[in-house]
Amino acid sequence: TILLRRRPSTPGVITLHNIVPFFSQGLQLILLMLFEIYLFLCVLQVNCVTFPLPGEGPEQQLLKPNDWSYCDYFWADKKDPQGGACIPGIEVLIQKQLKGKTLQKEMAEFIHERIKIEEEYAKNLSKLSFSPLAAQEEGTLGEAWTQLKKSLHDEAEVHLKFSNKLHSEVEKPLLAFRGEHFKKDLKKYDHHIADLRKQLASKYAGVEKARKALADRQKDLEVKTHQLDVKAHKHEEDIKKARRKSTQAGDDLMRSLDFYNQTQCKWFEEMVTSSMELEKMEVERIEFIQTHLRQYTTLRHETDMFNQSTVEPVDQLLQSVDPGKDRELWVRENKTGEVRPVDLDI
Amino acid sequence: TILLRRRPSTPGVITLHNIVPFFSQGLQLILLMLFEIYLFLCVLQVNCVTFPLPGEGPEQQLLKPNDWSYCDYFWADKKDPQGGACIPGIEVLIQKQLKGKTLQKEMAEFIHERIKIEEEYAKNLSKLSFSPLAAQEEGTLGEAWTQLKKSLHDEAEVHLKFSNKLHSEVEKPLLAFRGEHFKKDLKKYDHHIADLRKQLASKYAGVEKARKALADRQKDLEVKTHQLDVKAHKHEEDIKKARRKSTQAGDDLMRSLDFYNQTQCKWFEEMVTSSMELEKMEVERIEFIQTHLRQYTTLRHETDMFNQSTVEPVDQLLQSVDPGKDRELWVRENKTGEVRPVDLDI
Repeated sequence: TILLRRRPSTPGVITLHNIVPFFSQGLQLILLMLFEIYLFLCVLQVNCVTFPLPGEGPEQQLLKPNDWSYCDYFWADKKDPQGGACIPGIEVLIQKQLKGKTLQKEMAEFIHERIKIEEEYAKNLSKLSFSPLAAQEEGTLGEAWTQLKKSLHDEAEVHLKFSNKLHSEVEKPLLAFRGEHFKKDLKKYDHHIADLRKQLASKYAGVEKARKALADRQKDLEVKTHQLDVKAHKHEEDIKKARRKSTQAGDDLMRSLDFYNQTQCKWFEEMVTSSMELEKMEVERIEFIQTHLRQYTTLRHETDMFNQSTVEPVDQLLQSVDPGKDRELWVRENKTGEVRPVDLDI
Repeated sequence: TILLRRRPSTPGVITLHNIVPFFSQGLQLILLMLFEIYLFLCVLQVNCVTFPLPGEGPEQQLLKPNDWSYCDYFWADKKDPQGGACIPGIEVLIQKQLKGKTLQKEMAEFIHERIKIEEEYAKNLSKLSFSPLAAQEEGTLGEAWTQLKKSLHDEAEVHLKFSNKLHSEVEKPLLAFRGEHFKKDLKKYDHHIADLRKQLASKYAGVEKARKALADRQKDLEVKTHQLDVKAHKHEEDIKKARRKSTQAGDDLMRSLDFYNQTQCKWFEEMVTSSMELEKMEVERIEFIQTHLRQYTTLRHETDMFNQSTVEPVDQLLQSVDPGKDRELWVRENKTGEVRPVDLDI
């Protein structure tokens, strides 16, 4: 398990809680201003996600160095080239899986076309092997010829077997891999993370509101402290009241900041786990396709080998073709008479 | 060179020439009768060809023993099963060659059909190899997939090469073997021998006529010799005259016998040479077809081997499919941002 995130210990930034008790109101105000300025110097919000400014903050190590892991490269949203809405990083990963599913289906389609070609070829070979052409050839030559014609039927069988295995061992698995629910499952990641992003946005709005409220309170306190032309005791009361309210506003800001950061943290963790699952999916997809394309080449090799064997019996019978034997055979059947004529004599 | 024929030295048959001078007319007549009777006992005419009677005459050795040579088995005419005209032995041999020519043409036809099947198969494979299916697959998997598609085009090339070679090295030679003049050349044998058979028939008719004439003369002489009731001197004259005429008729018979035997001898020799040429033709035909069917199987073997090689590059690229590499490639191109979010802090 990897360390999910490292809190940037931004040096010099001390959270209000620590300092409020110890400083005079004037210093408090100045510090508060400084914090806000610092805040907008060292971080950057993009679509309500907070990133460190380039160069600012500590060096970030990749979560899985040298691994090109999805979990390290899809934190930002992708600018839509059409300048339309931005696409969240997770969406890019999901699109990749959806495209993968389509490609896998197209490969199955390709194999299906090959199957049809093989079936057609086998059909034609088998048909020709039954043709009566030169069926009357006799003797050893006739036997060789008959075997040659038969060998076409054997070839047809080989190609038919090839197409059947292509169907059951390549096309079908490619079609079956990642069934109907696959797209729904992917959408789940999408929705879940989109939902967290919405929460993040509202929490961010909360922070902004609280920050604004604090600023107002602080101005009000400042004004009050510099009013000298009012009755002293009444004046004291006002200042106390204003100070209480501004402290209150500071605490509110702290609270909404925590809400925001908690939500961002949830989103972060969800991003890491989801992207790593999508990464695993892609590895599975590639290995699955690799395995089944290997099965295709194995079947092709088998086919060539079986094809070889269909010719061998023809070769053997061609070798034992013997014109002498064939003549004997034919003469035995067709001879008209072996008694030679003799001279006629008185 | 084989001894073409062996004159049957039929024991006890002595030709007229030898005996006429030495015997009295009475004995002459008796001998003549005996000869004719003997003649019809020890030989047998079939369609004007003279064969020894089964069992009669000397044992005949085959011209080419243990060779089943055409020249030994087609002396008689073949009875037409439809009971129509007889078919001469030579005709049976010629029919065999004509049938061979047809079979050879049918084999070429069969090969042509095979060529068409291969062309169709190659066309379909090549077409499919150019299909855009799953063309968007990326990285090492994309390369393997692209090579797999390309391999179909290579296969198509292999089958196209096969069909081209089938055309030039098997179909064409089978069609070209024994060109247009072949049937004419065969007819020549036919006509030549048929012509000799016609001559044989007319010569045989001549023999019959001469034999009849001799018989008449002999009867006439016999009658004359037993007439006693006529004047002696006139009687002597008649007998002399009759004897001259019968001797004359005997010589005519001898001459027509010689003509007949000479013609039969010509026919015999023509039969032997022709049948042996036809036998050579059949050996050539069988060996020619054997050679070209062997060429067919050789091309088939080549095709299977070349086919094997089309799959190998696919296998190699499939082995180097690497999900990690593909992820790096894709992430480099599609990453949205590697800077991780940080806590928002006052």
